[in-house]
Amino acid sequence: MTTPRNDTFLRALLRQPTDRTPIWIMRQAGRYLPEYNQTRARAGDFLSLCKNPDLATEVTLQPLARFKLDAAILFSDILTIPDAMGLGLYFSAGEGPKFERPLREEWEIRDLTAPDPHEKLGYVMSAVSQIRRALDNSVPLIGFSGSPFTLACYMIEGQGGTDFAETKKMLYQRPDLLHHILSVNAQAVVDYLNAQIEAGAQAVMIFDTWGGALSHAAYEEFSLAYMQRIVSQLTRFKDGAEVPVVLFTKGGGQWLESMAATGCSALGLDWTTHLGQARQRVGAQVALQGNLDPAIVLTDPDTIAVEVAKTLAQYGTGHGHVFNLGHGVNQFTPPENVQALVEAVHRLSPAYHLADILPA
Amino acid sequence: MTTPRNDTFLRALLRQPTDRTPIWIMRQAGRYLPEYNQTRARAGDFLSLCKNPDLATEVTLQPLARFKLDAAILFSDILTIPDAMGLGLYFSAGEGPKFERPLREEWEIRDLTAPDPHEKLGYVMSAVSQIRRALDNSVPLIGFSGSPFTLACYMIEGQGGTDFAETKKMLYQRPDLLHHILSVNAQAVVDYLNAQIEAGAQAVMIFDTWGGALSHAAYEEFSLAYMQRIVSQLTRFKDGAEVPVVLFTKGGGQWLESMAATGCSALGLDWTTHLGQARQRVGAQVALQGNLDPAIVLTDPDTIAVEVAKTLAQYGTGHGHVFNLGHGVNQFTPPENVQALVEAVHRLSPAYHLADILPA
Repeated sequence: MTTPRNDTFLRALLRQPTDRTPIWIMRQAGRYLPEYNQTRARAGDFLSLCKNPDLATEVTLQPLARFKLDAAILFSDILTIPDAMGLGLYFSAGEGPKFERPLREEWEIRDLTAPDPHEKLGYVMSAVSQIRRALDNSVPLIGFSGSPFTLACYMIEGQGGTDFAETKKMLYQRPDLLHHILSVNAQAVVDYLNAQIEAGAQAVMIFDTWGGALSHAAYEEFSLAYMQRIVSQLTRFKDGAEVPVVLFTKGGGQWLESMAATGCSALGLDWTTHLGQARQRVGAQVALQGNLDPAIVLTDPDTIAVEVAKTLAQYGTGHGHVFNLGHGVNQFTPPENVQALVEAVHRLSPAYHLADILPA
Repeated sequence: MTTPRNDTFLRALLRQPTDRTPIWIMRQAGRYLPEYNQTRARAGDFLSLCKNPDLATEVTLQPLARFKLDAAILFSDILTIPDAMGLGLYFSAGEGPKFERPLREEWEIRDLTAPDPHEKLGYVMSAVSQIRRALDNSVPLIGFSGSPFTLACYMIEGQGGTDFAETKKMLYQRPDLLHHILSVNAQAVVDYLNAQIEAGAQAVMIFDTWGGALSHAAYEEFSLAYMQRIVSQLTRFKDGAEVPVVLFTKGGGQWLESMAATGCSALGLDWTTHLGQARQRVGAQVALQGNLDPAIVLTDPDTIAVEVAKTLAQYGTGHGHVFNLGHGVNQFTPPENVQALVEAVHRLSPAYHLADILPA
């Protein structure tokens, strides 16, 4: 058992007492950091950066060198799994991820298999091991994956988007085909995340970026059911330590009760959800991670401190809260604003944990 | 008093007994109809179509000639108000609406005034009168406006979008400026909708397309508060008939309780909200309008009928439901699928209204 010297993040996810609210930031290693852009330029492009464990380690550590963050997160992409399935992930300038060979024919769907994470995704496991060594037990490392439904959206549409017409047509007209894709994806995510845990990830997060585009009933059947399957098959204890699992459905604020019932450790919340109401609804079952509007970090240090104070007050006293943004940090964010955010959480959150640190 | 011969829509909005569930479809006059595209081609462009009362009347009536819809909705754009304020609305091919002169300077914001709807927006009032004459009391006519916050997003950003960085920076750093814009917009919407009611609109709907991009607290302060101000200042009775007001915040499913408390008659729901749960939460206060996923109407008649049946069952027995999509009809929708949707609602909904039509 190798508890990180700073285990505030892991303790908060497991709803154990902490002396302050831990913070990390979705997409904390990213384009808002000049040093990231330099490393990425050296790599050539985004995908080469993801596939090079040395460089992935380098960018994973960059935000930790600047800010007092309580966790590192593996630098990678949510679409590594369909890439390993042979769909041909590529990034066209300014347009987001795309696939060269999206799923078009029934035989292509029937032929899908979950990739062996040690073969096709070995570069990810190498990065995880290497990052763990570089972190040297300072803070925990988060592993992650896209959700089966979110991966399916990209695999069917060939890109991200806003209406997912092809995916939804399949959902309503050929649910059997979509269920097949989702079953394969769920198995792939289980294998992938368990391999990350084996390689050293100390918590894992499932990003369901597009589940919020579904109706309540379709969400439960086509997104949540597969995340639940994953949660039940993940390695939840490793070297004597519990490995927390965080589920994040962007736009899923209406469905927190069903999400909490999956057996996950924590829910990620986007900024549209009232943190205090979320705690009332599901705080007895799960920890909560979030949820400052990323737009706030575009403003200025004073404004950021005011909004951090409001967010902490919304959650209220006691443990079980991991501070984060409600979505990835915007690429135009000034790094000094991120500094102000992290400092504000360090400065303002201990007051909410007095009961945790006073003798009983 | 000139009750429409088919007043099912108005009765449902007022939670009065009806013998079936009425249906209309957001963006029912639109690009999925070949006859609409022909009229639009004659007009030259979208904005010229909006500004020509003869042609606006023509396209308003087109879907009613094809389908047994229970309401007509004024053909217009949500951005007519900022256009009348002088911001220069235009549409660039395939990119959605834009403004030539978005609000950039504080003096521009301080100079904003609510336009007189009879002067600058006279073309809308002419269209309303003309459509009413053409409808000849067959079905009611819905008037509408964008919400103050949604208008402000376009006025500040110069276009629609996904992150509203400029609007949110103003919201957090210069809330006084945003409140000024919103106050002017709210007055403009009140004047505009009351003029539409005066000209003959028998129900009005406020489209809050972007309020769902806000945090709960920001939504209440910067979007809902102004919609509430509008609701309280609208003409609610005209010629002895109540004029129902529908509020629709896309992505607002978490906030139905606060929306219902504004005093509006009904809430529009997008497809992410469970209709039965929404009824439990606010059905005693307001009628509900929605909320089939528009993607379903891209499929086929049998699939559509199955999903219509599920939606009706979610709401359950009794009145107070207006069937609609959860968002505007997709431009690639086959008209015969819309036909199937309308027929399914006519065929399947009377069973849910048996208590309303049996003698007491």
